Amino acid sequence: MQHLSIDLGTRSYPIYIGAGLLADRALLERLLPQRNVLVVTNDTIARLHLPALLRGLGDRSVTTHSIPDGEAFKTLDTLDTIFDALAAAKLHRDAAIVALGGGVVGDVAGFAAACYQRGIAYLQVPTTLLAQVDSAVGGKTGVNHPAGKNLIGAFHQPSGVLADIATLRTLPPRELRAGLAEVIKYGLLGDVAFLDWLEHSLDQLLACDEAALEFAVRRSCEIKARIVAADEREHGQRALLNLGHTFGHAIESATGYHEWLHGEAVAVGLLMAADLSSRLGWLTAGDVGRVKSLLERAGLPTSAARVGAARMLEFMTMDKKVQDGRLRLVLLSRLGEASLRSDVDATKLHATLQQFAGP
Amino acid sequence: MQHLSIDLGTRSYPIYIGAGLLADRALLERLLPQRNVLVVTNDTIARLHLPALLRGLGDRSVTTHSIPDGEAFKTLDTLDTIFDALAAAKLHRDAAIVALGGGVVGDVAGFAAACYQRGIAYLQVPTTLLAQVDSAVGGKTGVNHPAGKNLIGAFHQPSGVLADIATLRTLPPRELRAGLAEVIKYGLLGDVAFLDWLEHSLDQLLACDEAALEFAVRRSCEIKARIVAADEREHGQRALLNLGHTFGHAIESATGYHEWLHGEAVAVGLLMAADLSSRLGWLTAGDVGRVKSLLERAGLPTSAARVGAARMLEFMTMDKKVQDGRLRLVLLSRLGEASLRSDVDATKLHATLQQFAGP
Repeated sequence: MQHLSIDLGTRSYPIYIGAGLLADRALLERLLPQRNVLVVTNDTIARLHLPALLRGLGDRSVTTHSIPDGEAFKTLDTLDTIFDALAAAKLHRDAAIVALGGGVVGDVAGFAAACYQRGIAYLQVPTTLLAQVDSAVGGKTGVNHPAGKNLIGAFHQPSGVLADIATLRTLPPRELRAGLAEVIKYGLLGDVAFLDWLEHSLDQLLACDEAALEFAVRRSCEIKARIVAADEREHGQRALLNLGHTFGHAIESATGYHEWLHGEAVAVGLLMAADLSSRLGWLTAGDVGRVKSLLERAGLPTSAARVGAARMLEFMTMDKKVQDGRLRLVLLSRLGEASLRSDVDATKLHATLQQFAGP
Repeated sequence: MQHLSIDLGTRSYPIYIGAGLLADRALLERLLPQRNVLVVTNDTIARLHLPALLRGLGDRSVTTHSIPDGEAFKTLDTLDTIFDALAAAKLHRDAAIVALGGGVVGDVAGFAAACYQRGIAYLQVPTTLLAQVDSAVGGKTGVNHPAGKNLIGAFHQPSGVLADIATLRTLPPRELRAGLAEVIKYGLLGDVAFLDWLEHSLDQLLACDEAALEFAVRRSCEIKARIVAADEREHGQRALLNLGHTFGHAIESATGYHEWLHGEAVAVGLLMAADLSSRLGWLTAGDVGRVKSLLERAGLPTSAARVGAARMLEFMTMDKKVQDGRLRLVLLSRLGEASLRSDVDATKLHATLQQFAGP
C-alpha cells in the first residue's frame, strides 16, 4: 500500500493506493469516522465492488444509491436524485457520502456532499484509472450544463481517497486506455522522467500489471497533489492540470457527452496542445511525434475529424479559463513543462483546429 | 449612510445602509469592480427598483434575469434557469451576479454564484426588511427541498451588501411586519437594550420612519456580523441565529411554503421558543407575555393552530441542526441571551407544540 497526502491546511487529506483496500476495515475506520453513510455508485460498479466495500464499512448504517452510468447523466437531475436519497435516509450534517465509481460518480456525489445541508463529508473510492489519477483527487466536483462541461460545481475536498488498484482489473480495456490519457498528461505537464517511464512501461500498464499501475497512480497523484496544494482554487498554476482539456471538453460538448470517453477526448486534446506548441516553436516535430506515438500505442484516438474547427472554437470560448474575453490555453513550453498562455496567435490555433477537427 | 463590515479574513466584506444607495455609482464602483453582470430579480422588484440600480451600474454590460416570486419557487428548477441565463450571456469567472430583491432572490442568486464555474462573485442588494437584516448577510445561500427548507445550499460570502432603506417604503405592510420578526429576534437573542428600543420605536418602524429603520437594520446587522465573524460555517454559536427557526421552518415545510411568509413563521417560532424556555424555568411568564405583546403589536401571528404537533415534530427532525439523532433547539436563557440545547425534555417540547400547533 502506498500513501501520500494533499497538503491543504485544515482541508488536508490522505490518499491510499493499493490492491484490496475496499474491504480494509481498519483503513476505513481511520478515513471515515461517520456512522451514517450513503454510498453513491452505479449498477455495474455495485455488482463488481459493493460487496467488498460493505465488508470494509462494517457495522455502519449504510444506504446505497445507484445513478445511471455515463457522462450524459452528470446532470442537475441526477444530483437531485442523490438529494432525495439523502433526505429519504434522514441523513444529517454528521453523515458522509462514499463515492464508489468512476469520474461521473465521484463528481456528482462530491457535489451532492458539497451542497447537502451546505456541506457534509465524503470519501472518494475511485474504481477507474481516470478517477484514481485525476477526478477523485483535488476537490473539484460538479455537473455538466448544455453550455459546457463541469459548468456547475463546487470546490469541496474529500476527507480521503482510497484507490484500490484491484478494481482496475475489472475495467473494460477502453476505459483503462482512457485513463492512461490522463496519466500521460502528468508526464507531459510535469515530469519528463515519468514520460520516459511510461514509454517503457506501457505494455505492463495495458496488461494491468499491479506494480506498474500502483506506481503510475502514485506518481500521477503526487504531481497533481503538488499543484493542487499550491493553488487549491485555480487562481493560477492549477490550470496547468487542464492540459489538453480545453480542446477535449470542446470535443465532448460538441458531441453531447455520449460518443467519446473523457480520456479519449483528452488524448486528442493533448496532441492538439502539442501540435499548437510546435507551431509556436516550443516543441519540435519529433516531440509531437513522440506524443502521438505514445497515445497510439495506448490505443487512444489522435483526431476528432468530424467535429469541425468552428464548432470546437464555439465551445472553447465557453471554457472556464476564459478571462476578459481572452481564450487561455495550456500549452507545452517543452516536454515535461506546461504553461498557461492567453496570447496565442489565432491563425495558428485555427490551423491546429482544422488539422485535428476538420473544417 | 451607515457602514459596517463582516470580519472574515480574506472573505471580509462591507455592508452599506442608507436611503438612495441603489443609484450611487461611486459606491457601486467600489463594491463591484466586475464589468459583466447578471442582475437576478423578480418582476415586481424590477418594476420598482431596477431603473435606479441600472443607473448605479453605469456603463457595465448588464443582463437581467427574472425569477418567479415566492418561497415556493426557491427550487433547483429556478436555480437552473439562472445557470441558463449565465451561460446564455456567456459570462465567465470574472463576471458577477447582483441579487436585487428579497430573501428568495438573494438565496437562489447567491447559490447560483456559489456553483457557476465553481464560484463567481455576487453582490447582495436586499429590498425587503427581512433580507436587509438577515438573509443577505452572512453567506448562507441555497434552495428548498420537499424534505426541508434550505436543505441544499452553500456557504458563499457576497463581495458586499447594499441595503437601500428607501426600498422599504415600497414594501407591502405584511412583508414589512414579517421582516420585523427577524429584527425582534436579534433583540431576543443578543441585546435586551435593543429589545427595549424596539418596544419604544415599533410605531415609527411600522410607519417606515427612515431613521428608525436605518438604526434597526444597522443594529440587527451588527449583532449578526459579530456572530457570523466568530463562527462562519455554523460549527457552534452561529446556530443561535436560528432562534425561532426550527419551529418556523417546520411550519413553512408543513404548509408547503405558500401560506406563510418566512418572517411570520419565525414570529410564531420565537414565541414557541420563549414558551418552551419558560416551561424549562429560564424565562418568566411575564417575559413570554412581553414577547407575545411585541409580536402582536407588530401585527405578526402568534399561533399555527392548524399545523398539528405531530407534523411539526416530523419536519423538525429533518432540521440541519439535528446531531447524532438528537434535536437541538435554540432557546432563551433570558431575554437578550440565547443558548443551544440538545437535552430538551420531550414532554415539555410536546406541550409547547400542542399549545401553538394544535394536536
